[in-house]
Amino acid sequence: MEPFQEHLKDYQQVINEKLFGYVNRHINPGRVRDAIIHSIEAGGKRVRPILLLSTMEAFGVDYTRGYTAACALEMVHTYSLIHDDLPAMDNDDMRRGQPTIHKAFDEATAILAGDALLTLSFQVISEDSNLTSDEKVFLTRELSRASGGAGMVDGQMLDMRSEGKQVSIDELKSIHMNKTGQLLSFAIVAGAYLSHTTSETFQKIENLANVLGLIFQIQDDILDVLGDADAIGKPVGSDEGNDKSTYPQLLGIEGAIREMNEYMDVALHSLEQTGLNNTFLAELVDFLSTRDR
Amino acid sequence: MEPFQEHLKDYQQVINEKLFGYVNRHINPGRVRDAIIHSIEAGGKRVRPILLLSTMEAFGVDYTRGYTAACALEMVHTYSLIHDDLPAMDNDDMRRGQPTIHKAFDEATAILAGDALLTLSFQVISEDSNLTSDEKVFLTRELSRASGGAGMVDGQMLDMRSEGKQVSIDELKSIHMNKTGQLLSFAIVAGAYLSHTTSETFQKIENLANVLGLIFQIQDDILDVLGDADAIGKPVGSDEGNDKSTYPQLLGIEGAIREMNEYMDVALHSLEQTGLNNTFLAELVDFLSTRDR
Repeated sequence: MEPFQEHLKDYQQVINEKLFGYVNRHINPGRVRDAIIHSIEAGGKRVRPILLLSTMEAFGVDYTRGYTAACALEMVHTYSLIHDDLPAMDNDDMRRGQPTIHKAFDEATAILAGDALLTLSFQVISEDSNLTSDEKVFLTRELSRASGGAGMVDGQMLDMRSEGKQVSIDELKSIHMNKTGQLLSFAIVAGAYLSHTTSETFQKIENLANVLGLIFQIQDDILDVLGDADAIGKPVGSDEGNDKSTYPQLLGIEGAIREMNEYMDVALHSLEQTGLNNTFLAELVDFLSTRDR
Repeated sequence: MEPFQEHLKDYQQVINEKLFGYVNRHINPGRVRDAIIHSIEAGGKRVRPILLLSTMEAFGVDYTRGYTAACALEMVHTYSLIHDDLPAMDNDDMRRGQPTIHKAFDEATAILAGDALLTLSFQVISEDSNLTSDEKVFLTRELSRASGGAGMVDGQMLDMRSEGKQVSIDELKSIHMNKTGQLLSFAIVAGAYLSHTTSETFQKIENLANVLGLIFQIQDDILDVLGDADAIGKPVGSDEGNDKSTYPQLLGIEGAIREMNEYMDVALHSLEQTGLNNTFLAELVDFLSTRDR
C-alpha cells in the first residue's frame, strides 16, 4: 500500500474506534444504538474528520487533541445522511452499498438515531477533558453554525426545493456552500484553531476552507455522471433521476472540471501561503479532487 | 388576573420574544424558518424555561442571565414535539389546537425544522456573551445528556416500543424519567447552577429536579382520562387510543393520584430544605401538579 493510502487507513481506523466508543458509552443499549452502529459500520471515507486531524498534523501539533472534534464532525455528517435518506427527503434505500437505516430498521428509528447522533456531537465536545472551556465553546459555536438553519440544514432544504427547477450557477453554488461546504470548512477551521495558529495564518488557511466544499461537490457531480455504480455505492445518475441540478448539467463536463480547477488553484495557493504544501493534508486535498468514488 | 398568572404570563411573553429573536437571527429565511415560527406561535405553556428562570428568581439572582439556557431548553422541547408528531412516530395531526408541522407544511420540513431547532439550542448557548465559557460548557453538557440517546431520545424510543405491550410500573417510570423527566430536571439544575448555589443546596434542590418529571407526567396521564378536549388541545383518551401504558391504567386513577402526591411530598420537602417554599417556583410546582390542561 502507498504511504498515503496507509496513513488514510490509519486515520480511518482510529476514528472508527473512537466513534464506536462514544456511541457505546453514551447511547443506551437498544434500537437507536443498533441503528447508529449499523450506519457507522456501513463505512464511509471519514473525509471530514481526517481533514480536521491532518490540518493539525500539518501544523505540527499533537493531533490526538482533535479526536473529539473530528468525531463530533463525523457524527453530524452521519446524522445528516440518515435524515436525508428518509422517504420524505431524498428517499434513498441504499447508502455505501448497504440498506439505509429506515430500510434496515424503520423510519422512526432513523429519525431518532439522527437526533441522538446530532445531540451526541455536542455532548462529546463538552465532555472532553483534554480541551479548555474556551476551545469547547469555539468548537460548539462553529459546528452548530455550520450545521444548522443557516448552514447544512438550510442547504438541504434549498437542495430539495430546487428539484425539478432550473437553478442558476450562483444558486447551485450557494446550495452546496451550505449543504456540503460549511461542514468541510469546519474541518479546516477547527483543525487550524486547535493548532493555535497565528491569526494571519488562520486567515490564509480559511481560503482553503472556503473552497473545499465546492471542490468536493463538483467532483461528486462529475462522478455521478462518469463514475461506476460499484465504486460509488449508489446508482450512477441517481441525482439526474431525482431531477437535481448539477455542475455538469449547468456547465457541461468540461466546464465543471474547469470550475473545479479554479477552486483547486485557490486551495493550492492557500496551502503554499501557509507552508503546508508538502503535507499529508495537501495530498488529501489533491486526492479529493481526483478521487474516483 | 392573579399575581401568579400575571407573573407566568410575563415570563411567557419574554420567552416568546427571545425565541422569535433567535430564530429570525439564526435561521435563514424560507420554509424551515416559517415552520419553526409556526410551531412557536402555536404556543405552549413554556413550563420548562419558566422553571429554569423561576429557580434563579427563587435563589435571588438576576434571572435574565438564564434567558439563553431557558430558550435553548424550550427549543429542544419544541424540536422533540415536532419529530414525535411525525407519521412514523406518534402520527399526531394536531398539537395545541393547531395542525402539526408535517400537516401545515410537509414531513421533510418537519424533520429539518426539528434538526435546525436542536442545533440552534447549542448555538445560542455558545454565543451568549453574558455567560462564562465554563457556564456554557456546563449547560451544553447537561442539556445534551438530558436530551440525547441516554435521555429524551431514548425515552421516546422506549415509549414507542412499549405500545401495545403490558409494561410494569418500574418500566413506565423509567420511560418517563427519560422522555419527560430529564428535560424538566435540566430546568432546575441549570437554574440552580446559574445561581451559583453552594453544593449542599445544589444537592437538595436536585431532589426536586428528580421528581418533577414524574409529577408532570402523572398529571398529564390523569388529565388524559379526566380532562376535556378543549382545555388540553388534543382528543381526550388519545393515549389510550394509541394503546400506551399510563399511570391510571396501571394503578387506577386513585392510585395514580396517590403516587403523584408522594412525589409532591419530595418536591415540597426539597423546596423547604432550600428555603424556597414561599416563592413563585413553589407556586409553579404546585400549579403543575393541579393544572387542568
